[in-house]
Amino acid sequence: MSYHLDVTTDQATYPILIGAGQWSDLADTVQACFKPTKVVLAADHTVAELYGAAVRLALESIGCPVSLLVCPPGESSKSTDVATDWWQALSAMAVDRHAVLVALGGGVVGDLAGFVAATYLRGLPLVQVPTTLLAQVDSSVGGKVAVNLPAGKNLVGCFWQPKLVWIDPAVLLTLSSREFSAGMAEVIKYAVLRDDGLMERLETSSDEVLSRDPDTLGPLVHRCCQIKADVVHQDPRETNGVRATLNFGHTVGHAIEKLTGYDTVLHGEAVSMGMVAEARLAERIGWTEAGLADRLERVARLYDLPTELPQFSWEQWQSAMLRDKKNIADRIAFALPRRLGCVELTADVPIEAIHSIVRC
Amino acid sequence: MSYHLDVTTDQATYPILIGAGQWSDLADTVQACFKPTKVVLAADHTVAELYGAAVRLALESIGCPVSLLVCPPGESSKSTDVATDWWQALSAMAVDRHAVLVALGGGVVGDLAGFVAATYLRGLPLVQVPTTLLAQVDSSVGGKVAVNLPAGKNLVGCFWQPKLVWIDPAVLLTLSSREFSAGMAEVIKYAVLRDDGLMERLETSSDEVLSRDPDTLGPLVHRCCQIKADVVHQDPRETNGVRATLNFGHTVGHAIEKLTGYDTVLHGEAVSMGMVAEARLAERIGWTEAGLADRLERVARLYDLPTELPQFSWEQWQSAMLRDKKNIADRIAFALPRRLGCVELTADVPIEAIHSIVRC
Repeated sequence: MSYHLDVTTDQATYPILIGAGQWSDLADTVQACFKPTKVVLAADHTVAELYGAAVRLALESIGCPVSLLVCPPGESSKSTDVATDWWQALSAMAVDRHAVLVALGGGVVGDLAGFVAATYLRGLPLVQVPTTLLAQVDSSVGGKVAVNLPAGKNLVGCFWQPKLVWIDPAVLLTLSSREFSAGMAEVIKYAVLRDDGLMERLETSSDEVLSRDPDTLGPLVHRCCQIKADVVHQDPRETNGVRATLNFGHTVGHAIEKLTGYDTVLHGEAVSMGMVAEARLAERIGWTEAGLADRLERVARLYDLPTELPQFSWEQWQSAMLRDKKNIADRIAFALPRRLGCVELTADVPIEAIHSIVRC
Repeated sequence: MSYHLDVTTDQATYPILIGAGQWSDLADTVQACFKPTKVVLAADHTVAELYGAAVRLALESIGCPVSLLVCPPGESSKSTDVATDWWQALSAMAVDRHAVLVALGGGVVGDLAGFVAATYLRGLPLVQVPTTLLAQVDSSVGGKVAVNLPAGKNLVGCFWQPKLVWIDPAVLLTLSSREFSAGMAEVIKYAVLRDDGLMERLETSSDEVLSRDPDTLGPLVHRCCQIKADVVHQDPRETNGVRATLNFGHTVGHAIEKLTGYDTVLHGEAVSMGMVAEARLAERIGWTEAGLADRLERVARLYDLPTELPQFSWEQWQSAMLRDKKNIADRIAFALPRRLGCVELTADVPIEAIHSIVRC
């Protein structure tokens, strides 16, 4: 089964194609859409080894010149240093504005390659080919691209929409269990954003989902992309509060990633812990009825996700959360659930409530 | 006399205010428009010394906290290294999205600070306060922001429109003669883009212009900004060929800057030499009648601008011009005059004609 979704933003409309075929079909689509002077394939070493040769062959066999940009796997590649290396590599390859940059990989490569595409020659066309569950349901859609600074995640970036998102759920079979579970954290987040039976599906079908049967994953990825596309359409540049609701679990989640040094805890794992903590916070301040945090904790565990916060001092938590992009002056902002299907923004959470959640 | 112009792009509409008052008026305007959590003032050491304290005092005296970003003067500050330093400085200052970045300076600071504003937290509001003639008539308007790579100028950047451009022609009195003349190169370029009497004005009033009488400069800067705003309105992201006509003189000009190492020849000086060379090229290929190049050479000399190309090998010229962002695959693109008032793009200039111009 294949799906075609359109994402409409302030910049343009672009398709998400899910399960639309093999690498040869991707190559045909890229050639037909762009007639590029060159395809620059960006990937980390792991993904380049798994799929790089096949994708390259598919493109070259239809007459499309291919160059490679590679980086080490892991969050530490999402740096200004690697971005600078890639900018210089593009200029050494004499890449022009009629080339296409294809980001083949997870969230790290999608964000890094997306930022480089957004800024090289003031913008190259970008195709996202996400190969992790997290990238397929979240980071490849919506045009947020960025690299990290030592002081925090995604502090340097742009909004740069891809021209095409190509998703093949079959590639998820090569993911480690840990990476797959991490992606499920964002799926659980969508289940909190919309009260449409997704949470029940996750609660009752964990065996099928964890077996990664493409007939189960295709519809699941499609549903998540629909929700993401709908949110991005309503608020492409995160200016009216709608898009910021996608940050449920992320204020605490980003702080965990920062405090643990980015490469210890996966983004999805941090979001899992963050969602449970932030749901407890919402209950603590009376935003939501008791029970949601426990429910989230149970479903996260079904997918082998961590739910207990790591131990840090209050000063460390506070300083990490004070760097969040959503903040206004010195107030820490959260996207908190009112109930299943309704997440709202607030920068008015009493500091004592935050303290009691992260230090409990 | 003061002027108010509006620039309308695909992103937004913003005002250019010319001769609207003192630093205290700028401070009042910034406070009224943005009510910022903080103003980050970006400048090079020279401009920071000239105006930094006064601008800071004006802002602080109305209760607006100010932080400074400074860099050495000169094109070499427009680098990924300085951009990285500034991103890290902004994160150390805990700057949030409700801050405003004010670029106080010439083209280097405007482009660098603009790129940093475009990318920090995926975009901070930007105010351009150009202090050189070149920045007042050209680089502060239109949202092109960028830094250089060793391989070429402006290879890394974005389109990021300012929220406000504040121009005080009186600050041009502190410019060196050389810097002032360099700015006149872009003024001459506008006189080629529009056949509206501007060229004659430049030919007959060089004494008044060079005396920098604000009553002469105000209307001149206003006319240039009008032309720039009109072009940017028609083609905000340089996609339909209109905006690329602003690159008259710049294919050769950028090559000169690259070959001479960016800090030897000023941008306007390179554009002056580039315009004369490209007008000769247009004559050589029969695009324009003989005479325009000589006329440009005379007017450039009136403003003490260089018109003779430096000596480089053909291989050096070719390799430098092949990195231009306007190129398509391996063809060197030019914006060439058909006649006064009409500049058009072409990537079809015979390589022998280019050779004969740069090697003559």
